[in-house]
Amino acid sequence: MTESPRHDGRTPDALREVRITRNWLDHAEGSVLVEFGRTRVLVAASVTVGVPRWRKDSGLGWVTAEYSMLPRATHTRGDRESVKGRIGGRTHEISRLIGRSLRAVIDYKALGENTIVLDCDVLQADGGTRTAAITGAYVALADAVAHLRRLGALKGEPLKDSVAAISVGFVGGRPLLDLDYEEDSGAGTDMNIVMTGSGTLIEVQGTAEGEPFTRAELNQLLDLGEAGCAELTRLQQEALAK
Amino acid sequence: MTESPRHDGRTPDALREVRITRNWLDHAEGSVLVEFGRTRVLVAASVTVGVPRWRKDSGLGWVTAEYSMLPRATHTRGDRESVKGRIGGRTHEISRLIGRSLRAVIDYKALGENTIVLDCDVLQADGGTRTAAITGAYVALADAVAHLRRLGALKGEPLKDSVAAISVGFVGGRPLLDLDYEEDSGAGTDMNIVMTGSGTLIEVQGTAEGEPFTRAELNQLLDLGEAGCAELTRLQQEALAK
Amino acid sequence: MTESPRHDGRTPDALREVRITRNWLDHAEGSVLVEFGRTRVLVAASVTVGVPRWRKDSGLGWVTAEYSMLPRATHTRGDRESVKGRIGGRTHEISRLIGRSLRAVIDYKALGENTIVLDCDVLQADGGTRTAAITGAYVALADAVAHLRRLGALKGEPLKDSVAAISVGFVGGRPLLDLDYEEDSGAGTDMNIVMTGSGTLIEVQGTAEGEPFTRAELNQLLDLGEAGCAELTRLQQEALAK
Amino acid sequence: MTESPRHDGRTPDALREVRITRNWLDHAEGSVLVEFGRTRVLVAASVTVGVPRWRKDSGLGWVTAEYSMLPRATHTRGDRESVKGRIGGRTHEISRLIGRSLRAVIDYKALGENTIVLDCDVLQADGGTRTAAITGAYVALADAVAHLRRLGALKGEPLKDSVAAISVGFVGGRPLLDLDYEEDSGAGTDMNIVMTGSGTLIEVQGTAEGEPFTRAELNQLLDLGEAGCAELTRLQQEALAK
Amino acid sequence: MTESPRHDGRTPDALREVRITRNWLDHAEGSVLVEFGRTRVLVAASVTVGVPRWRKDSGLGWVTAEYSMLPRATHTRGDRESVKGRIGGRTHEISRLIGRSLRAVIDYKALGENTIVLDCDVLQADGGTRTAAITGAYVALADAVAHLRRLGALKGEPLKDSVAAISVGFVGGRPLLDLDYEEDSGAGTDMNIVMTGSGTLIEVQGTAEGEPFTRAELNQLLDLGEAGCAELTRLQQEALAK
Amino acid sequence: MTESPRHDGRTPDALREVRITRNWLDHAEGSVLVEFGRTRVLVAASVTVGVPRWRKDSGLGWVTAEYSMLPRATHTRGDRESVKGRIGGRTHEISRLIGRSLRAVIDYKALGENTIVLDCDVLQADGGTRTAAITGAYVALADAVAHLRRLGALKGEPLKDSVAAISVGFVGGRPLLDLDYEEDSGAGTDMNIVMTGSGTLIEVQGTAEGEPFTRAELNQLLDLGEAGCAELTRLQQEALAK
Repeated sequence: MTESPRHDGRTPDALREVRITRNWLDHAEGSVLVEFGRTRVLVAASVTVGVPRWRKDSGLGWVTAEYSMLPRATHTRGDRESVKGRIGGRTHEISRLIGRSLRAVIDYKALGENTIVLDCDVLQADGGTRTAAITGAYVALADAVAHLRRLGALKGEPLKDSVAAISVGFVGGRPLLDLDYEEDSGAGTDMNIVMTGSGTLIEVQGTAEGEPFTRAELNQLLDLGEAGCAELTRLQQEALAK
Repeated sequence: MTESPRHDGRTPDALREVRITRNWLDHAEGSVLVEFGRTRVLVAASVTVGVPRWRKDSGLGWVTAEYSMLPRATHTRGDRESVKGRIGGRTHEISRLIGRSLRAVIDYKALGENTIVLDCDVLQADGGTRTAAITGAYVALADAVAHLRRLGALKGEPLKDSVAAISVGFVGGRPLLDLDYEEDSGAGTDMNIVMTGSGTLIEVQGTAEGEPFTRAELNQLLDLGEAGCAELTRLQQEALAK
Repeated sequence: MTESPRHDGRTPDALREVRITRNWLDHAEGSVLVEFGRTRVLVAASVTVGVPRWRKDSGLGWVTAEYSMLPRATHTRGDRESVKGRIGGRTHEISRLIGRSLRAVIDYKALGENTIVLDCDVLQADGGTRTAAITGAYVALADAVAHLRRLGALKGEPLKDSVAAISVGFVGGRPLLDLDYEEDSGAGTDMNIVMTGSGTLIEVQGTAEGEPFTRAELNQLLDLGEAGCAELTRLQQEALAK
Repeated sequence: MTESPRHDGRTPDALREVRITRNWLDHAEGSVLVEFGRTRVLVAASVTVGVPRWRKDSGLGWVTAEYSMLPRATHTRGDRESVKGRIGGRTHEISRLIGRSLRAVIDYKALGENTIVLDCDVLQADGGTRTAAITGAYVALADAVAHLRRLGALKGEPLKDSVAAISVGFVGGRPLLDLDYEEDSGAGTDMNIVMTGSGTLIEVQGTAEGEPFTRAELNQLLDLGEAGCAELTRLQQEALAK
Repeated sequence: MTESPRHDGRTPDALREVRITRNWLDHAEGSVLVEFGRTRVLVAASVTVGVPRWRKDSGLGWVTAEYSMLPRATHTRGDRESVKGRIGGRTHEISRLIGRSLRAVIDYKALGENTIVLDCDVLQADGGTRTAAITGAYVALADAVAHLRRLGALKGEPLKDSVAAISVGFVGGRPLLDLDYEEDSGAGTDMNIVMTGSGTLIEVQGTAEGEPFTRAELNQLLDLGEAGCAELTRLQQEALAK
Repeated sequence: MTESPRHDGRTPDALREVRITRNWLDHAEGSVLVEFGRTRVLVAASVTVGVPRWRKDSGLGWVTAEYSMLPRATHTRGDRESVKGRIGGRTHEISRLIGRSLRAVIDYKALGENTIVLDCDVLQADGGTRTAAITGAYVALADAVAHLRRLGALKGEPLKDSVAAISVGFVGGRPLLDLDYEEDSGAGTDMNIVMTGSGTLIEVQGTAEGEPFTRAELNQLLDLGEAGCAELTRLQQEALAK
């Protein structure tokens, strides 16, 4: 592991500057503008009474998510999925990941037959949009749950834990935390880690973009990611305490 | 016509507070966060060398626009058009209006074979999203043109004039400028006016939502709208001067 | 303003020959073949008991319209929207305009919970298809209402007024009534005016295709259009009297 | 075979009144309004220089067809396929049948690298729309070929023969020619026959809607259909001679 | 008619080797892998209690079919219809033919309000996929009916007869039974014949791909096809007897 | 960890019976029917000369995959994605995973400008379809590469290693290898592991379906999965040696 700083001056185990701005929208029951450096995701939590048809009369609530990117979030403009008439595989995959991650800390029974939809729209992308989205979505979800609590619409405490997520990867043979776009493009192995606030794992997705990786390398990345998620958990608590 | 103030305290001929924030995005060649009160539209101008196939080798440039609304821009969440797999009629209609309005002040020859796409994404909607989008898009367009000028990619000055737009309407029998969502919902006649900075008309779209209207009423609305557009033109110049 | 006749011999304020043929179809509750010169639109009014779900149990009726063009209505064949799998923005926009225009003269309460759909299919296009469609659709609508009246299915008189529409525009600097395709292609400003039989305005849509226009020019066009709509109203009454 | 007349007074072997009106449209290179009783199909033949990509530089022409039905062609309104966003199986099947039938009499080499598209739009449906479409399409095709001949764009005579089509079926145990909607709904076996003007078969499609049929019954239907096609051939020649 | 054997050594009136393997799948209520030489179709019959909405409370059952081809069933890979986002005309047409053919032998009343869907997926195509599908689907249908009988869910015997299908055609002027892909590509006239086990006709679809055909030629093909269907009926009975 | 056998009698660390049948199809350049117990996936490898447009003239080849499931692969019939008109998120995600896994062992330069598409169609699903697909796809890929080698179309050896994949998970608190459908439905944590034949990791995807998991539990699953992949590698080599 070399000692040179990263292209933006960070140490290998440093997060980018993370900003979590609550109540960025006026209408949504919970809303967060979450920024990991130049990556900027707007998360809106929408509460509706009732659940999808397949879950009716179960007494259980539901939480789901949709991820999307504005056409000029990226360096060059991408076509809108609404114009193309179909949602791409990457969008589907990330929407599913975000929903799954949040559902892992939800007590459906305590939520009662209410549905919370988390819309995660990437306004600007500079790497790590899915992990920023999950991290911000938890805060918007917590606000939406608080809204339901104020209405007396809950059967208990639906949040069993908090959730945060971060990306890690090997770049130039060195394990780095919270890759930006430039680093991500050059990463050999790329991993996204989703963890609870109490330190257990919800999702581990590691992919060899270049060379396959060893168990030892996997463990290096997991160590980095655990520390990153712990720091994000602290920042979430701070934001929610305001 | 009564003398009571509007529900938000404005006089009948007053705009909401208008904020035009340039360079809100890092990647786009021009970008503006434009706010008319609680209505908030993010406009990104994307420049590409070349023009659509049907315009190739004409020596002429092209300008077009796409309008869209985030699902939770509104009071209750709407379905994403990408999920529905088709773009609604309203979206199409507004995208066409914005593109047409901006093209009215463009000298295609001076632009050369370059294309500028204006993405207008409504982050929060409180009435007047299309007029805010046009007003903001002109500023983003001017920045994108400046970008092309710096690159030496222009054949002359492509901007023949500036463009601004405002809504006017009769609410409770009284002509009002710049309707917010609440006022718009109760409007009998609703009109959108697009004007150049030099005071000529680009587009007039008046619709009787309730009772049909007379020529005299049409003229009242046009008077109000002209004054509103003149004020917006001043604010655009101010923003561009920064 | 020059005094030379138009390319088809008309004076600037003359309509093309307008023919309104009722009952052109055997199955529809109202049907009209409306011709403005070579523009030929087939309008079918379909009555169904009941209203869309979002309007159920309101006691109110509903009127809507769909506009479409046969592939070879135009000089060169266009692709079918059914084949392309999506409806174009222009089609959506015109369908919405027609529906809105007819709804402006409908008393929903008197209509009762019945729905009338106006299908406007352009068999041949030579400019002014949307205004011909609106003008013909009113006649088909009146026949469909008469059908409901004969069935005893109405709660009162649903038609508060009649509706007619015409295009006007500046061609070569001269204001002209009822533009055909050739004139429309060369028009600097193009306006569609929808009026009631009693002379009030339902919709005014003016667009600068070339140079922006002044208030004085707008007024010239409105004067021409008012006279045209009055003449169309007379022709509608004549057709309905047969 | 019983001796009572059919519900509209026809004998079992009688066609409905057939009308073939050429040049019903002004823009199309060939156009026909074909009527079999109350069934009314508008056929437009569009000529374009060149052929689809997969046939380029082969020296051969191409002929294809598209069939569609206006929403209120039928007794109750059907949804538009453009609105549904997909073309139904029946539409596809009939479009393919029409194209195949016409191609059977085309000499592609003599046609040269030209394409003729036959748009068959059913304005009113009362049974037998596909056979009326084929019968009319041949006449529109002949006019389009004549258009190409006048332009000197042919390599020879592309029409090797003429084409006509008719439906036959067993209704109440009795073989009938040219079924209308009411008869078709009650038919046990339904057959569409496409023949050349010289009396050979291009397509035979027989379907047992109720009871399966025997070879003897098949032959009865073929006899009826042959006579019907011969009569239609005569009417086509008469129309083309005008 | 020449006496040389066919390219695979068959006599003109010989079927390819036909194999019918029942219960190829574990979950489906009936399933068959049917092979006509190298053509290989997997048919799954799925039983559900209840019928489509438009048939509810009629006391009648429903049978339908869907046909599809794996992308590499053919010599060169075809695009998936799910990827293209639309089902092709040929797929629709064959699905409709299979469903119609099976419904011809069904007594809906005896079936009761149950639905059987026949999925016919072509794993490998070498000509005659639709006739193999129909022939195999009958066997899967019989197994699904037996399944319903064991459950006591029938109101009587829903199978009035059996169904088999075969292709015939003129290749090099010679009438041949059961064309493989190579023969089919060179066929002048191509016919698909669907028959009941008792020897009556359900569907006859003859198409002149090259020269139109005469009644005498039609009869030659029908003779060949009748014999082929009789042989397939015997093989179906054999398979069901196991 | 309890000592009772699994519901099908396996020990916790046992694979189901794995069968790899090469050359199951006649047309494809490589084809495999791979079975993990009752899970049955047909993989076809299609070779085409040339690469997608975005990769042209790079000298590099391309490998991609498409995954799909027959409607009755599962216990209850699912709707076809071609009928729904859109590909589901799960299908996209698995297709991307398979493609990525195979590309990890490909030397694009040695492959030359050739494309290999792996179609993985699930004929019957009983858990582990994606891991069976990857395991079988490697074998089909190897056969397709051999085909290219025979043609002299390679620039070197494109296969840097082999690939196999297996699922592991905690069921009833016990770590199990190669979950079938019943086990998968009850799994608390579910993980898919993709490894090279030489024992390095290509992809690790672990998801907490129920309770979040610890690093220690993650390691237990990785240990099980590594052993399973090693055994699958052996079976692949055995199959390829035939």
